[in-house]
Formats: sequence, C-alpha cells, structure tokens
Amino acid sequence: MIDRLDDDGSRLADALARIQREVDAAFSGFLPVPEDARSRLVEAMRYAAIGGGKRVRPLLTVATAAMYAVQRDAAVRAGCAVEAIHVYSLVHDDLPCMDDDDLRHGKPTLHKAFDEATAVLAGDSLHALAFEILSMPETSADPIVRAQLIAALAGASGWNGMAGGQMMDIAAEGQGYDLPTITRLQQLKTGALLGAAVEMGAILGRVPEEGRSHLRYYARDIGLAFQIADDLLDVEGDEAAAGKALRKDEDAGKATFVSLMGVEAARTQANALVTQAVGHLAAHGPEADLLRALARYIVERDR
Amino acid sequence: MIDRLDDDGSRLADALARIQREVDAAFSGFLPVPEDARSRLVEAMRYAAIGGGKRVRPLLTVATAAMYAVQRDAAVRAGCAVEAIHVYSLVHDDLPCMDDDDLRHGKPTLHKAFDEATAVLAGDSLHALAFEILSMPETSADPIVRAQLIAALAGASGWNGMAGGQMMDIAAEGQGYDLPTITRLQQLKTGALLGAAVEMGAILGRVPEEGRSHLRYYARDIGLAFQIADDLLDVEGDEAAAGKALRKDEDAGKATFVSLMGVEAARTQANALVTQAVGHLAAHGPEADLLRALARYIVERDR
Repeated sequence: MIDRLDDDGSRLADALARIQREVDAAFSGFLPVPEDARSRLVEAMRYAAIGGGKRVRPLLTVATAAMYAVQRDAAVRAGCAVEAIHVYSLVHDDLPCMDDDDLRHGKPTLHKAFDEATAVLAGDSLHALAFEILSMPETSADPIVRAQLIAALAGASGWNGMAGGQMMDIAAEGQGYDLPTITRLQQLKTGALLGAAVEMGAILGRVPEEGRSHLRYYARDIGLAFQIADDLLDVEGDEAAAGKALRKDEDAGKATFVSLMGVEAARTQANALVTQAVGHLAAHGPEADLLRALARYIVERDR
Repeated sequence: MIDRLDDDGSRLADALARIQREVDAAFSGFLPVPEDARSRLVEAMRYAAIGGGKRVRPLLTVATAAMYAVQRDAAVRAGCAVEAIHVYSLVHDDLPCMDDDDLRHGKPTLHKAFDEATAVLAGDSLHALAFEILSMPETSADPIVRAQLIAALAGASGWNGMAGGQMMDIAAEGQGYDLPTITRLQQLKTGALLGAAVEMGAILGRVPEEGRSHLRYYARDIGLAFQIADDLLDVEGDEAAAGKALRKDEDAGKATFVSLMGVEAARTQANALVTQAVGHLAAHGPEADLLRALARYIVERDR
C-alpha cells in the first residue's frame, strides 16, 4: 500500500514537473517581447504566467486528454488557455481594490513588481490570450473542436462562472453565508474552471457530451475538495510554503467550509469527496491513474 | 449635393438609432439578473453595456455583413461581441489606476456608480461575454465561422492589439512619441478593434481572405480618421456633448496627432483619410452606402 502510494506520488510528481516545464515553454513561445513600449506589458504577462503555480488545471486537461489518445501538444495548448484564465484571475484578484495581496507564488504580486495599471492590462491581455490560443488551428485542426473548447472556457470564466463566484466572494464579508451558498459560491469561483479543464480534455478527445458525465462528476467533486483543502490551508498552512498571505478569510469575517463545519469535519468531507471523485472513474483502467492521483494530491498538497 | 448629404445623414441617423436599440436589447437578453449575490455584478455589466455609446463598432459589423446578405440577427450578435470588448476596455480604462475618469456617456463611470472591485470584475465578465456570444451556435451555425470570428476578435484585443496600444498610451507621458509611433499606437489601441468589427462582418459574409483587403484598407483608414477626430474633439470639443472629461492628453503632456500636426493639418488629414477610405469601396454599389456614410460620420461627429 505504501509502495503503491509512493509509486503514485512519484509518478504524479514527474507529471507535475513535466507539465510545469511544458506550460512555461508554451507561454514563453506565446509571449515574445516586442521591441516597443508594449514590452513592459508582455514582460508583466511573462512575470505572471511563467515559472509559478502548480499547473493543476493544465495537468487536468492533459491527463484527461491522454485517456483518449489526444496528441500531447494540443492538450498542453488547451491547458495553457485554461491556465491563462486562472493566472489573469489571480492578477486581478491580487489588486489593491480586490484582495490587496503583496505576495503570490513566493514573489511580489504583479502590481507590486510593476504597477496597478500594468497589472490590469496584463490580466486583460492574458484573458484575451486564452481565446487566441484556442482559436489557433495548431490547438485543433477541427474548428468544431475549437469552437467547443472556447464555449467551455468562456462559459466557465464569466459572470455565470468564475467571475460570478468572485463577486459572491467579495459580497461575502459579514453576510453569514450558509453551507449551500458557500458550496454554490465555490463551485462558481473555483469549480467552474477546474471543470472546464477536464471538459476541454474530453472535448479534444472527442468524447460525446453524453459520455462526459462521469468526468463532470469527477471534476465537481475534486473542485469542492480543492476548495475545502484551500480553506484548511488558510487556517493551518505555512505562509512560506504557500507563498502567499494566509488567514485572510477569518480576518475578513468570511464564512468558509472550515468556519461552518470545523477543521475535522472539513477534512473528513474533503477526503470523502476525493473517494467519490475516484469512484466516478471506476469504468476506466490504468489510463485514469493520473486523474486518480491528482484527486488525492488536491487534498494532500501544502500550497 | 446638400440633398444627398442630408439623405445620407438621415439614413445613417436611422441606422445608428436602430443598431442602438438592437444592441441594447441583445445585451439585455444576454444579461439576465440572477437572484443571488452575483446580481450586483450583472447589474454593473448592464449599467456599462446598455444605453450608452454610439455603437459605431456594431454598426460597422452589421453594415459590412449586410453587403453580403448576412442574416441581420447574426450580425447584431457579432457586433455585440465587439461592443462588449469595447465596453470592457472603457470600464477598465476609467479605473483610478488607469485614466481615473469620473464621467462616461454623461453618467458616472462604473467604479463611481458601484465600486472599483465590481468595475474590475464587470469588465472581466464583459470580456468573457464577448467570447461566449461568439461561441454560441445562434451567432453562426457554422463552427468554422465561429472560430474565425473568435480569432479575429481575440487577436484584436490582446497585447498585440487594443491592450498593447493602451500600454503604449500609458507609457506615452513625456515620451515625445513621433508621428509614426503615434500612428502605430493608435492603430493598435483603436484601429485593431474597428478593423475586427469590419472583418467580422466579412467573415459572417463568407468573403474569402483574399477578397477582404479593400475592407481592411477601409477599416485602417477610418480607424486613423476616427482617432484624429477624437484628438480634435479632445482639443475643441464640448465636455457636455462628449459626456466625458476632455483635454486630458494635453494636461498629461502626451503627444497626439493634433499636437504633432496642428489643428488644421490634422483636420485635413482626417478628411483625406475618409476620402481614401471611401475610395476603397469603389468596386461596390449602393450596398456600401452605409459604410461610406459611417466614414464621413466618424470625422463629423461631436462626441
């Protein structure tokens, strides 16, 4: 059992290290620094997008796509599009008028390293980059696939997805949200994009809509587990390891899974969600091992 | 001659009034207010997107598409996507860390009417909405067309388009940009999106790439004329009519077409560009009259 876990762990560590290299290389290629005043903007985009982050979302896309024998390069590109949305949301979230954070991935946030105006524009440009990547024939030669990828990502990031969840989160202070409301908030804020990452792997794999529901359930469960783990890290984590400020929710008087359920019940729930997520993959053989390992990693990570 | 101009003018006035109604109605349909904490976000999006603006970009898309017998509803939707990008850019441009403007279309800017965090998120959500609209089958049943529309819009809005131009503009203070640099800046900042508006009409009309170059030249010329007219309005315009603060470039010590060329030469150049733009439509008959009238309107408008 220990051996099997170790085995899983090292395979996952390799997979994470590999996708981190690939995503960095891809962003570097997408973002050549021009020789005019736009250089500052592209440098800022590179600062935010390259060399930071666990790359969980691109790995979800690539691991899902690999189950259906998708060409790896295409999956990495789609994963980069999801990650570009994630990174832009972090850049805007960190702004003084939003969460006002100074530290991200252990280095100064973008508006600290550059300035606020550049951070707004760099976020906006990473947002556009996501759709540029997906609209290129290199991502998929089939325009139907490209249109489906774009629909999945745009739907997950707008007011009815990530941005809507962020709005609910901003409004959360002192609101005393209950557990169903927190669940809905997090499903929008974090779950929608994690779900899109998996969905886009399935789209590349030409899995028909009706064949994707087990993957949707998997994504929904790891999305919630991910957020509960985040709340636990926020309470118990180490700021140096996390590379960002912690214990902000408590300070802001925001209800979280942990404040509503308590530490122990939250941990139990996160583990139950992971078990349930892995259960949704029961029809798959070893080709789903990476998704299974990712589900476990999501609640065991220290940042 | 006067009759003909009047005729053109009233037809254009009708066309503007019609597209304004259509765009407002379409945004209203795209943005139903949800019954939870996201309502504030969607209300903010509606505040920015509905009932303001000349809708020059949607009219460019619709007028171009009409030349190729595109179904009007599809063209209005594509025009709304362009306008969503335009509106999001205004919302972010107006932020305190950017241009810090209090007034837009004669009413308080979004961050004044709501707050900064909501303005950042509403801009982001309008950005996503643009790509959501384009990825829907209702915009075009043909996914190839949808993918082309998205590629055109994403390319025009990112670091190599509008956002790149905005970065150059931010860096302009005290830089003493010369005329070629200002031309390049404005081509990115304003021209790219106006060009995309025309291009997307042609894409909907299934005009092959090689058949679009005259439309590209037209768009390039009206884009520059538009910006020169903006610079002239900034110097000579009436703030009440414009509905926004004027004379900001001069105060910031930024070079503009007018500061570099002088008022008279700038006006002559704007008119020459309009004549040139209309010339690119010479192969078309009356079906291009609206594009011709739009070109003239662009330098004659008072806001």
